[in-house]
Formats: sequence, structure tokens, C-alpha cells
Amino acid sequence: MRTIFWNNEKQQLEMIDQRRLPGMLALYTCTTCEDVIVAINAMVIRGAPAIGVCAAFGLALAAQQSKSYEINGLLTDLEKSRLALYSTRPTAVNLAWALNRMKVEINNYQGTFEKMKSFILGKAQELADLDVILNKQMARFGADLIKDGDTIIHHCNTGALATVDWGTALGVIRFAHEQGKNIHVLVDETRPRLQGSRLTAWELDQYGISYEIICDNMAGYFLKTGKVNKVLFGADRVAANGDVANKIGTYMLALAAHENNIPVYSVFPTSTIDITLENGELITIEERSQDEVLEIYINGDKATPEGAQARNPAFDVTPNKYISAMVTEKGVIYPPYDLNLSKLFENQPH
Amino acid sequence: MRTIFWNNEKQQLEMIDQRRLPGMLALYTCTTCEDVIVAINAMVIRGAPAIGVCAAFGLALAAQQSKSYEINGLLTDLEKSRLALYSTRPTAVNLAWALNRMKVEINNYQGTFEKMKSFILGKAQELADLDVILNKQMARFGADLIKDGDTIIHHCNTGALATVDWGTALGVIRFAHEQGKNIHVLVDETRPRLQGSRLTAWELDQYGISYEIICDNMAGYFLKTGKVNKVLFGADRVAANGDVANKIGTYMLALAAHENNIPVYSVFPTSTIDITLENGELITIEERSQDEVLEIYINGDKATPEGAQARNPAFDVTPNKYISAMVTEKGVIYPPYDLNLSKLFENQPH
Repeated sequence: MRTIFWNNEKQQLEMIDQRRLPGMLALYTCTTCEDVIVAINAMVIRGAPAIGVCAAFGLALAAQQSKSYEINGLLTDLEKSRLALYSTRPTAVNLAWALNRMKVEINNYQGTFEKMKSFILGKAQELADLDVILNKQMARFGADLIKDGDTIIHHCNTGALATVDWGTALGVIRFAHEQGKNIHVLVDETRPRLQGSRLTAWELDQYGISYEIICDNMAGYFLKTGKVNKVLFGADRVAANGDVANKIGTYMLALAAHENNIPVYSVFPTSTIDITLENGELITIEERSQDEVLEIYINGDKATPEGAQARNPAFDVTPNKYISAMVTEKGVIYPPYDLNLSKLFENQPH
Repeated sequence: MRTIFWNNEKQQLEMIDQRRLPGMLALYTCTTCEDVIVAINAMVIRGAPAIGVCAAFGLALAAQQSKSYEINGLLTDLEKSRLALYSTRPTAVNLAWALNRMKVEINNYQGTFEKMKSFILGKAQELADLDVILNKQMARFGADLIKDGDTIIHHCNTGALATVDWGTALGVIRFAHEQGKNIHVLVDETRPRLQGSRLTAWELDQYGISYEIICDNMAGYFLKTGKVNKVLFGADRVAANGDVANKIGTYMLALAAHENNIPVYSVFPTSTIDITLENGELITIEERSQDEVLEIYINGDKATPEGAQARNPAFDVTPNKYISAMVTEKGVIYPPYDLNLSKLFENQPH
């Protein structure tokens, strides 16, 4: 089952409700663009590639909802929905990438009004299918970097659940496992939303890959005591110079790995690269609700005082110097990143 | 109220049950040495200085329990209890320090058998009183390093609850606050036991000091974006070269602060220094129960898969090069630590 898919029979969008895992595998249904906006905001679905595809399907639902009887009216309705979808989450660039790509396709549409809505749905479906293809390419390239016997620290969730299927960094680990390599994963729990202990651990259980959960602040201990061979994570937005915005905690993890000469690999499709941004300091960092930090329970007791305040930046930026290599669907990219990332875009308009 | 104190009327040891905070301020009573061992193991009481004092009172309780009618028999009973107390937690050296100090006092005792038990209790009480005095001295020295307007990241709990009263690193912050300095604390929640969000936040509420809770993995974001002026924490064991074993996560925090040129201060009494250990790599790191990592609940749901495994090292070692200064009751110590720490012990037997 894909993380997100179109139900043709019911003409609705369905996705795994990631808030319910690992306790329950439940589906969340979207019949309107507004449902999609809620799903992204509330993190029913998360992960940069998955969010991008979800937003594309959101446009397809917006088209179905439109009451207009002609193309220009439909375009106006779609533009409103596109802007609403665009503003759901600011950091991951795949959202903007998918919406822009959909916009170009829609603007270039030459067919009849009658066929336009199914055309838009078809383009969203193409993006979903493309995501799976690109992830498998990344997995294959990345698996070459993984050795038999490796212990890998992995941050957040970058698996099938973060994409349509297969995943980015976790896809690499899965592919290496399927190659027969013996791999052990130390799963960063990834506070505050615990995507590591909830989602990555659950996925590793499905794949039969050996793992242990650690608190994020323990990574340094394992890196420093020689128990780790590699660090892998995804990316939410990569600047032209190779600075990587990713889930909060990535920066401290990459820094500690670098300090201990452990290779650090960031795995993402090229749609995650924002070639228009000179460096990572220009990336907008989403700050989410305090409750995500404060609503934590141990032994049935709330672990924060009543009335306490919290901060909750959802991402941080890892400077390019701490990234040993980047794995994309076009191959493994090494420093200097400013040069080697720009080469990827040489023959493309952007 | 002190964190731990002797109830003269009931002839029993009482302490704040830190597992119940911040929801409830409850006392835990120990009438036997075995009760004390349970209290330390289960982290009813924690914090290197508090554990040391608690163990000293444990010996006083062991003396009361002894059925021997003469000094040699009592000494034999006490030695058994001392070894049991010694092995409760391996990393903090204050435990060994307090027990050794008690042993020396007991061995030097020249009085009658009849007065010996109250002598031992008196020596434990002296250690408790001494802890408060030393903490106030540290607070005064450390407060000179704090400026009006500082934002400080603080790790774990080092306040009154980690000691008999007043605290180490948090004592410095409290003293600076009482000097009228305007201070804001970013409280590392400190997974897995959440001593930051449960205990430090609760203490800061009592003192009226402004704070916000952050997840441990967010510290790097705040350090890198110029929002933090200082990093403060305690210590559980300091090697002769100045390497600091402290609550898990300290290493990544200190490294990220160092990388961003933010001063890092470790605050501890000289009883935390293990001058017999050449460097921090020789410090035994306690690994605690997996359940401390796995038993975490968000929105009422367990955030780890059934059957998942976890690792749980309770401490890590921060290399001396990341510590800007150390605050002790004898003053502020700067690098080179091997030289300047050894000076503290020049005229002392150890």
C-alpha cells in the first residue's frame, strides 16, 4: 500500500494517518482541497516528498469542487487553492515544487473544459508515480555507500511514509538490506513528534531490519564511542550551496558526526533543491505549536508544569561542510556542492 | 524545604519524590538503608551531590539497623551497606566521595559504642549542611559570569532538587536572578527522564525566572541563530584533565555551543572531580533500563512499537576543549584544566 493514493472508485484521496502509528494503521480520507490542507497542517501526512504529492492531489480535488463551467473560471478557483496549499507549511520546498509543476501543466493545457479535471488528476497521479521511481533510483545509488555490517544513525522518518512509497534515506537502508547487507539502525526518536520512534521503527519492523531506538541527545555518545559507521537523513530544502534544511536536530547530529569523522549522507530528490536560494540561512524555518513539545507523558503523568511555555522550531539548517555526500535520483553528489548542484540544473529552466 | 533531610522526630530520612514532579510535591520516606538504595536506583532522588548526601544518610540508617552490640560488628555491617550503596549508580563520583568520607570519619571514631550511631548520623548531617554552603559559594562565583539580559541554555536539572538545596548550575542562575539580572532560560527537556521539563521548569517557576522549554535537539538551532549567550550544566564526574561526564546530551550541546563561540560553563563542587582519572574516556557510563526510552506517550498513545528495543546510556563525556570555564566552590577554573584542577588538590590527601 502506498502512503498516499487516489481511490478511483470513490473518487477521493486516501492516505495513512501517521498520527495513529505505530498503534494503529488507519486511513484518512480527503474529499475536498480543504481536507488536504488540514491533513498537511495537522501532520496526518508529513515528509517533504509526500507533502508535495498530497498538495498536487489537493489541486485535483479543488478542480472537482469548482462550480465553474469554463476554463478561466476553473483556473481562478485553482489559483486560490494553490495559494492556500502553498502556505500550509513553509520549509519543505517539494510542496512549492509540486504546486509549481502542476501550475505549469495546467497553464499549458490545450484540451477541452470537459476533460480538464481528469487531466489535472492525471498529472497529480503522474507526480505520485514519479516519486516512487525517483526513490528507487536514489535507493540504488545510495546503497552503494552502505557496507555489510554498518551501524547507521537515522534521523526522523524518511521512509515509505515520508514519500509515496519506498522513501529517501530509509529507502537507501532498505535497498542495502535487500542486497543482503547486514545493517543495524540506531533510530533517533526525533522529538517532539517522534517520527523516528513512531514511524521509522514501525517501518523497520515491517522490513525486518535490526534497530534500536535512541533519544536524539544520545547520538553523540554513540558517534564518539566508535559504535556508528554512517549517519543518514533526508532533506526538506537544500540551498544552492548545499546547506540542508531538515527536521530539527539534524544540525547537532551532523555536527557530532563530522567531529568524529563519521560520514554524513543526506538523501533527497532533486526537487528538494532550491537553486534560487544562495545559502541555508535564507530558508524560512517553520515554528509549530508549543503543545507538540509540552504534551508529553511519562508513567501517565504530564512531564511539563501547567502554564509552561515552549519553543518549537520544526527544522534546522545543517551547513554544507558537515555533509559528506548527497544522494539524489541523478546520482551521488560530492563537494564542492555549489558547483556540483548547479550542474544538475544546467540544462533545465527553473 | 530541603530536597533531602533527616526527620529527627521520626528518626527517618525524607526526600522529595522527584518522580512525581511537576504534578505533585510528595515526600518519600526511608527507614532503612535498603529504602535508600531503592530511592537512588529508581531516581526518587537524583543529581550527583544529592545522591552523595543520600548515601551518607543511608549509612546512618544502616547503623541504626545494625543488631551488633559492639564497634567491630557495627563496622562490619556498615561496610556491607557501604558497598551496596556504592554500587547503586556508577557514574557520579560524589556518591563514592561521600561514602569514602563517611568511611574515614567512621574509621577515625574514638568514642563509645553507645554514641557511635548518633556520631554517624551527625557526620551525614554535616555533609548535607556542607553541600548547601558549597552551593552558595559556587552560585556567587558563577553569577559573576552571567550578564543582565543573558539567554542561557540549561541541561538536565542542577537546581535545589539535584542537591540538598540551592543547586549547582541552576544555583548560579538563581543567584544572578536575585542580583537583579534579567535572565531567560531555554530549558533542555533532557530525554529520557525529562529532568529539564519536569524539574528545572518547576524550579524556575518557584523562583520566578523566565523560561521556555525546548527539546534537546533544538539547542543547536538556537545556538546557531544567535539567540543564546551561555550554556550551563552541572557534572557527574570530572576527570583530572577536565573532561566532564554529565547527563546524556551534554556532549552534543557543548559541541554545538563551542562551534558557535558560545561560552560553556560546567558548575560542580570539587567533590565531583575524580583526580585519579587521567581522562574522561576512563569514566564508567551507566546504561539504564530501555523502558525509560520506550515508555513515552503522546496524545494518549504509546510512541514506540510493541517489542521495540532501545539503548539508554545515562551520561556522556564532554571533552575539556569544549568547556570555557568550570565553576567550583573554590572559584572559577579556566584552562589548562589538567594544571588548574590539580592545583586544587595540591595540599590535600585523596
